[in-house]
Amino acid sequence: MMPDFELHPQLRKDCEEVLDWPLCKVLLMNNALVPWLILVPRVEGVEELHQLTSQQQYQLLQEAALLSSYLEYTYEPDKLNVAAIGNKVRQLHMHIVARQEQDPCWPEPVWGNLASSPYEQAELSALLVQLRANLA
Amino acid sequence: MMPDFELHPQLRKDCEEVLDWPLCKVLLMNNALVPWLILVPRVEGVEELHQLTSQQQYQLLQEAALLSSYLEYTYEPDKLNVAAIGNKVRQLHMHIVARQEQDPCWPEPVWGNLASSPYEQAELSALLVQLRANLA
Repeated sequence: MMPDFELHPQLRKDCEEVLDWPLCKVLLMNNALVPWLILVPRVEGVEELHQLTSQQQYQLLQEAALLSSYLEYTYEPDKLNVAAIGNKVRQLHMHIVARQEQDPCWPEPVWGNLASSPYEQAELSALLVQLRANLA
Repeated sequence: MMPDFELHPQLRKDCEEVLDWPLCKVLLMNNALVPWLILVPRVEGVEELHQLTSQQQYQLLQEAALLSSYLEYTYEPDKLNVAAIGNKVRQLHMHIVARQEQDPCWPEPVWGNLASSPYEQAELSALLVQLRANLA
C-alpha cells in the first residue's frame, strides 16, 4: 500500500507492534503503568495531522475512535487522553492513553511525567495476543 | 443549535472566546508564551472524542485542520501539538498549540510545564481582532 513507509526507530524501540489497520500501524507502548496505544499512519514523511489527505484524516479518526472504544470497554478509564504531539519524534503518531485517577501521574499528562516501566515478558506476550485477537 | 451548551468555567477563566464555528467554539488561551487555540464542540455533556457522532467527529477534524493551517501559516511553528486530554476539565476540548524550539518548555508538552503569562490588554485586544478577521 505505502511501500516506502518505515516506522521511526524511537517508536520501534519504545513500543511493540500490535497489527496493521487500513491506515495505521497500531503500537503498544511498552510501559506497564498505563494502557497506552499509538496509531501511526503508514504514510511516509507526514508530521502533522492536516498534512494527511481528507480521506486519510477521516480514516485516522475512525481508527482512533475504535481504539478509544476498545480501551474504554477493556479498562474502564476515568479519562482517555488523545494527542498528536511529536516534538521529539516527528513522524506523525497519535497517542491514545487510558488514564485512571489512581495512575502514577494523574492528573498530569503522561508525556514527560511517567517513569519507564516495561512489561514483564510473559505479561507482554499475553497482552499482545489479547490485543491482536480483539483488534483484528 | 445546541441551546443547553455552556462553556466550562475553567475554560472561560483561562481563555478568550474568539468566535463560533459550525461545531466548535474557538478559544484563545490567554498565555502570551505560545500561540495556543482551543476548539470546544458546542455539545453538552460530551467528554470523549468518540462520544461525538461520526458527523460531529468529522466536523471537529475539519475545524482542527483549518486552525492548524492557520497557525502554521501565521506563526511558522516547528511543530503543532494537537490534543484532547481533559483530566482536569472534563468538557471535551481540543488544544492546538504552535510550538517553537525556542519556546519556554520545548520539547516538553505545554500542559503542566508552562508558566501562566497573560497577554497585555492591548496586545490581547489586537490579537482577538486579528483572529476574528482571519477565522471568520
